[in-house]
Amino acid sequence: MGGYYVGRERKARRAYGFDEVALVPGDKTIDPQDIDISWKIGDLSFKIPILAAAMDGVVDVNFAIQMGKLGGLAVLNLGGIQTRYEDPYRVIEEIVHSSSKEAVEILQKIYREPIKEELIEKRIKEIKKAKVPVAVSCIPQQAKKFGPIAQEAGADIFVVQATVVTAKYVSSSKEALDLKSFCQQMSIPVIAGNCVTYKAAYELMETGIEALLVGVGPGAACTTREVLGVGVPQVTATMDAAAARDDYLKSSGRYVSIITDGGMITGGDICKALASGADAVMIGSAFARAKEAPGKGYHWGMATSDENLPRGARVRVGTTGTLKEILYGPARLDDGSQNLAWAIKTSMSYCGVSTIKQMHNVEMVIAPAIKSEGKFFQDVQRIAKIR
Amino acid sequence: MGGYYVGRERKARRAYGFDEVALVPGDKTIDPQDIDISWKIGDLSFKIPILAAAMDGVVDVNFAIQMGKLGGLAVLNLGGIQTRYEDPYRVIEEIVHSSSKEAVEILQKIYREPIKEELIEKRIKEIKKAKVPVAVSCIPQQAKKFGPIAQEAGADIFVVQATVVTAKYVSSSKEALDLKSFCQQMSIPVIAGNCVTYKAAYELMETGIEALLVGVGPGAACTTREVLGVGVPQVTATMDAAAARDDYLKSSGRYVSIITDGGMITGGDICKALASGADAVMIGSAFARAKEAPGKGYHWGMATSDENLPRGARVRVGTTGTLKEILYGPARLDDGSQNLAWAIKTSMSYCGVSTIKQMHNVEMVIAPAIKSEGKFFQDVQRIAKIR
Amino acid sequence: MGGYYVGRERKARRAYGFDEVALVPGDKTIDPQDIDISWKIGDLSFKIPILAAAMDGVVDVNFAIQMGKLGGLAVLNLGGIQTRYEDPYRVIEEIVHSSSKEAVEILQKIYREPIKEELIEKRIKEIKKAKVPVAVSCIPQQAKKFGPIAQEAGADIFVVQATVVTAKYVSSSKEALDLKSFCQQMSIPVIAGNCVTYKAAYELMETGIEALLVGVGPGAACTTREVLGVGVPQVTATMDAAAARDDYLKSSGRYVSIITDGGMITGGDICKALASGADAVMIGSAFARAKEAPGKGYHWGMATSDENLPRGARVRVGTTGTLKEILYGPARLDDGSQNLAWAIKTSMSYCGVSTIKQMHNVEMVIAPAIKSEGKFFQDVQRIAKIR
Amino acid sequence: MGGYYVGRERKARRAYGFDEVALVPGDKTIDPQDIDISWKIGDLSFKIPILAAAMDGVVDVNFAIQMGKLGGLAVLNLGGIQTRYEDPYRVIEEIVHSSSKEAVEILQKIYREPIKEELIEKRIKEIKKAKVPVAVSCIPQQAKKFGPIAQEAGADIFVVQATVVTAKYVSSSKEALDLKSFCQQMSIPVIAGNCVTYKAAYELMETGIEALLVGVGPGAACTTREVLGVGVPQVTATMDAAAARDDYLKSSGRYVSIITDGGMITGGDICKALASGADAVMIGSAFARAKEAPGKGYHWGMATSDENLPRGARVRVGTTGTLKEILYGPARLDDGSQNLAWAIKTSMSYCGVSTIKQMHNVEMVIAPAIKSEGKFFQDVQRIAKIR
Repeated sequence: MGGYYVGRERKARRAYGFDEVALVPGDKTIDPQDIDISWKIGDLSFKIPILAAAMDGVVDVNFAIQMGKLGGLAVLNLGGIQTRYEDPYRVIEEIVHSSSKEAVEILQKIYREPIKEELIEKRIKEIKKAKVPVAVSCIPQQAKKFGPIAQEAGADIFVVQATVVTAKYVSSSKEALDLKSFCQQMSIPVIAGNCVTYKAAYELMETGIEALLVGVGPGAACTTREVLGVGVPQVTATMDAAAARDDYLKSSGRYVSIITDGGMITGGDICKALASGADAVMIGSAFARAKEAPGKGYHWGMATSDENLPRGARVRVGTTGTLKEILYGPARLDDGSQNLAWAIKTSMSYCGVSTIKQMHNVEMVIAPAIKSEGKFFQDVQRIAKIR
Repeated sequence: MGGYYVGRERKARRAYGFDEVALVPGDKTIDPQDIDISWKIGDLSFKIPILAAAMDGVVDVNFAIQMGKLGGLAVLNLGGIQTRYEDPYRVIEEIVHSSSKEAVEILQKIYREPIKEELIEKRIKEIKKAKVPVAVSCIPQQAKKFGPIAQEAGADIFVVQATVVTAKYVSSSKEALDLKSFCQQMSIPVIAGNCVTYKAAYELMETGIEALLVGVGPGAACTTREVLGVGVPQVTATMDAAAARDDYLKSSGRYVSIITDGGMITGGDICKALASGADAVMIGSAFARAKEAPGKGYHWGMATSDENLPRGARVRVGTTGTLKEILYGPARLDDGSQNLAWAIKTSMSYCGVSTIKQMHNVEMVIAPAIKSEGKFFQDVQRIAKIR
Repeated sequence: MGGYYVGRERKARRAYGFDEVALVPGDKTIDPQDIDISWKIGDLSFKIPILAAAMDGVVDVNFAIQMGKLGGLAVLNLGGIQTRYEDPYRVIEEIVHSSSKEAVEILQKIYREPIKEELIEKRIKEIKKAKVPVAVSCIPQQAKKFGPIAQEAGADIFVVQATVVTAKYVSSSKEALDLKSFCQQMSIPVIAGNCVTYKAAYELMETGIEALLVGVGPGAACTTREVLGVGVPQVTATMDAAAARDDYLKSSGRYVSIITDGGMITGGDICKALASGADAVMIGSAFARAKEAPGKGYHWGMATSDENLPRGARVRVGTTGTLKEILYGPARLDDGSQNLAWAIKTSMSYCGVSTIKQMHNVEMVIAPAIKSEGKFFQDVQRIAKIR
Repeated sequence: MGGYYVGRERKARRAYGFDEVALVPGDKTIDPQDIDISWKIGDLSFKIPILAAAMDGVVDVNFAIQMGKLGGLAVLNLGGIQTRYEDPYRVIEEIVHSSSKEAVEILQKIYREPIKEELIEKRIKEIKKAKVPVAVSCIPQQAKKFGPIAQEAGADIFVVQATVVTAKYVSSSKEALDLKSFCQQMSIPVIAGNCVTYKAAYELMETGIEALLVGVGPGAACTTREVLGVGVPQVTATMDAAAARDDYLKSSGRYVSIITDGGMITGGDICKALASGADAVMIGSAFARAKEAPGKGYHWGMATSDENLPRGARVRVGTTGTLKEILYGPARLDDGSQNLAWAIKTSMSYCGVSTIKQMHNVEMVIAPAIKSEGKFFQDVQRIAKIR
């Protein structure tokens, strides 16, 4: 795995992010129409390998329904506004209309409201009624309690998610979630994460999960990286988790999907995640820009409201198109944020591969992340000469 | 070829772009007057190794004529405005006067107008009348149809160009262009591209083409890179294609020219492309700034009008001088965008080489792309102390 | 230790800074409540491994008392305003109200006032009265004189500090401080620095000091680096000093603490310093932003007033919270500058370690320092998706 | 010498610039008062190893006199305004008062005026009268003619300088300067350059020159790099030339000084050049800011007026202090642009060396050139904590 001397007697691996690699075109090209980008987990199968993140500015009941109808999967956060408030939209109004200065404190206040179990049940049933798969998430501490409720209410997939999740949690005072027992108790597929290393990934797979979320502090500007110093760029993290998946498959015969989560905005980033070994990707900000997103052009993280250590502000992302346009086009923007499905297919076409699994082996180069200076030069570089 | 661990079990090569390398002066210097920078393809020979790209803001009939008279070669796009409209200038007016917001949609509308075969014939004859070589281009899907028309009308060179072109195209529903048959059918030289790898380059050479266009997503800000994740920086791409050219020459006895296409703006970039192994370069934006350019100071890519996935906006580049000044000076700007021919000769003079083929072996160093911070420091650095 | 060719026959090691590395989450996670971040020197023990730097905008008597009560340690500069002026606050007013242009000259003037021995005694006693440990510092040239005075007055720790301190100082005209004799004469623990190399660190440890300050020109924008060309990024410097500590422990049986000093602003930087091998960190700017800081939102270095070669301007850092909030939260900012103790614990929790000594062995990756371009992208990246 | 794969079958060395390295403090420190930074060429000896570049905004008769009196050496350009115009100050007024747009054309016009031999004689005598060493320069094509005139008039040092100078110049129509014969004919020391490679440096030394100027396209923003693609970062270039010097000394017994020329602005850059092996440095912009500089706060290169390919604009650098302050302080700026002599001594003090020759072996590290983002963070980093 290489490694470079960082100190006199200490080596570190170099980890790579999306901005630092590029995909190499193949020796053949393939008609995008012939390319299959579907993804499945358990018995459920999806047209596109894209999940919408369990964030309150992105996924509500309606968004989850629309996403499902379009062939994707949205995850509803059971620890968010939707399950704390009977009428979440009044609360979102408050977030949206708060000033940048107040936002953190207002978010902290709003998320102090307790989660109601009856709302968990209610939201799941609302989505279920539309006959689309229902995925919900919560943090490990609440999984044992909310898991059975969600399953009972009709959820199809349960996601256990925190900044860092490992198979083993050590505490002298709190009871840790036994993920292995939890997976056995649940009759629906469990997705867990996030993690970034081979070993942590492998051990999580051994607990019985069906898919793994990959991504901790992916970018240099990430708050996890800034505030805690912790993080691994996503190309390397995804590749390492994918290596664990392949090795686990060899020894167990069971295929656990890798879902790269975080750090992707453009279609190019998604393509690079798939080429790094991801079976699917989980996206937040791109969907926060959809007309269907409850955040109305605003986006915030679930850690922004942390009482002790709030991380990541509320951000104005704007509304740029419908969910359908974002997923399937036609694109009206030229920045790679729309028609993500076609972008994946076109990329695979150039790389000469026709399934996501083949995409896992596409050649990459390490390419400079440095962009030319000066607006003129950059603008000119952006011109795509050829159709 | 080296390679670095990007993931636990996965290596990637480091690819280099123009900003990251610099040419090393030679052990002797040569009088620029004694330096030969001519280039040839088939029986045609050109004073300068510079082609103007088949873009609608750059090349029209008049531009192609002026370029030919000055010893260069301009390629007219058969899929552009010139062959869709009897009077293309009214349409260009519309593009130029549209707002930035409307530009993509207006371009999409304009390029919906069908291509007229009689206009293909007409444009070629208009250029031909001026007694300069005529080069035209189209995408692979239209080559079989437009190739014979163009040749019949008097074209001297035919260019088959798409973002990525490979010798093999796989489709379950569409007929693929058989480039080998096409080259055999055409009696004029065929140029094809773009490609960026050794293998793809070698296989394209085997089809019988006379020259190869090299360049896919060259820069970090490139739309192909941003939207699709695909691309290889140009120094490495050119070197790899040049290696294929040299190996193919050894086995076949036939020399196929390498034309580096894209990512170059200044004379310095062109010099680096030649030192990477290019026989010639294809330039867009530098020519969009010519008084003779039909775009009137605007520049846009052929993919901007893509119905599904528009890539790259219309950019205001301004008009900075005549085509003659851009190619042969005297330069009135000090930024390396004028007097390109003299810049190449001066560079070769310092490198101690007197032909383009010798330039292919000039030593390079990897030099930091990072520019000093602060305008003052940068301005001061720009001062060329010595004549 | 590796090394790369910088010149034809000359190699240099690559040194790394905080921005270039990131910590890798562990295979287990630990309850932050169970994590011990205490630190000790001699018989004194501290709740948190954070020292406040001996800078006049940061530490005065009151600040030192508050810091001590909160379980940390502040160092009072014996060569600063507090010991030159009976009423230092009038002088600080002058600094704070000077224009940016005047600031250097005003600082030069203010620091021309001689140091008064009676004020040394007075300040130490003022702190001592609050029953918190007293730490004071001076430059090597003054140590022999001020050391005994400070010890006599009740100081608990004495710091000998200059930009670069080595065990051996060569001068034809001045008497050099013999650090070994000095340590023997002093009955309280001596901390010395700064240094950045293994050998210099080892030799300083041999003089009998209890802790070593590490850091010379840590960042690229550092004035020591800019003005003198001298400096070593902090991750590498800390690792090398830590290697010296470990080797010195093996041969002498004595453990000398490593205190990384300089270049850290966020909690993330502190976590990386600890993971590089530091036992504690010394911080300036983060504390200059405390309500208790004497600088009232302004911050300046002790070299700004240098008569010959002033380095580093007076900077407006603003006042963002109380010292308590900065150390223990609750954080009201999301940028990693508040609740540093909890940030360290959370980071260690994710890394799966429960003591600072274990933190010394946490895995790092080299991760790109390059941040995405464009405010939108950066803002979105800052969102912490998961709690 | 290492090397990395840039293309499939092509390697390139990595070359380093000032921004990418930093000096490592030594194991001992030395009293700056005991440090010797003198430099000599032939029989002439100078207090400081700093030359002022032969640029028209920097050196005129008066500046050369002041520089000489202060123990340095200024080179007067025989191809500049001073020898073209009886009254050069009227012409400088015109340059200074021209708009940015006109500047290139006005410079081109001004430098069309022929050089007058009587003015060469006159300027040299004017400097000579002040009893300071006189150094003058011209381009290789004029050396044969101007050399004897200058020597006759009393010049002490003759500089032959062009962007790239090699021992061998090939031309079918022009007579090349035979540098070996020239050196033999001249009874005063000859300095020649610029060059950047070991071989070119070695061959130039063999012609009999006393000192070598090193530097071609040192920075990424350099016009030679931008316009022509040619250049080598200065740390590597200096190290390679110094290796040639050392090898040439071994075989010939003759020591040829290395003068690093270009790319340095702060004292830190100068210190790094000396540590790379330079015996002295040649500086332009830092002196253009002196009150004594004829450019009155403006600075331009000798290539700005090139008729064919003007490179590098006229830049407003401002006037920041007297020449004495720039060289010997006291500094009133904190950015490393003043008190250069003391900066060199302080740097050498920290590195533990007392002569320039010892400085040649000081350890360097490769340190990231990347500066932290955000003005606040940068400002805070600039604070020099310790005196």
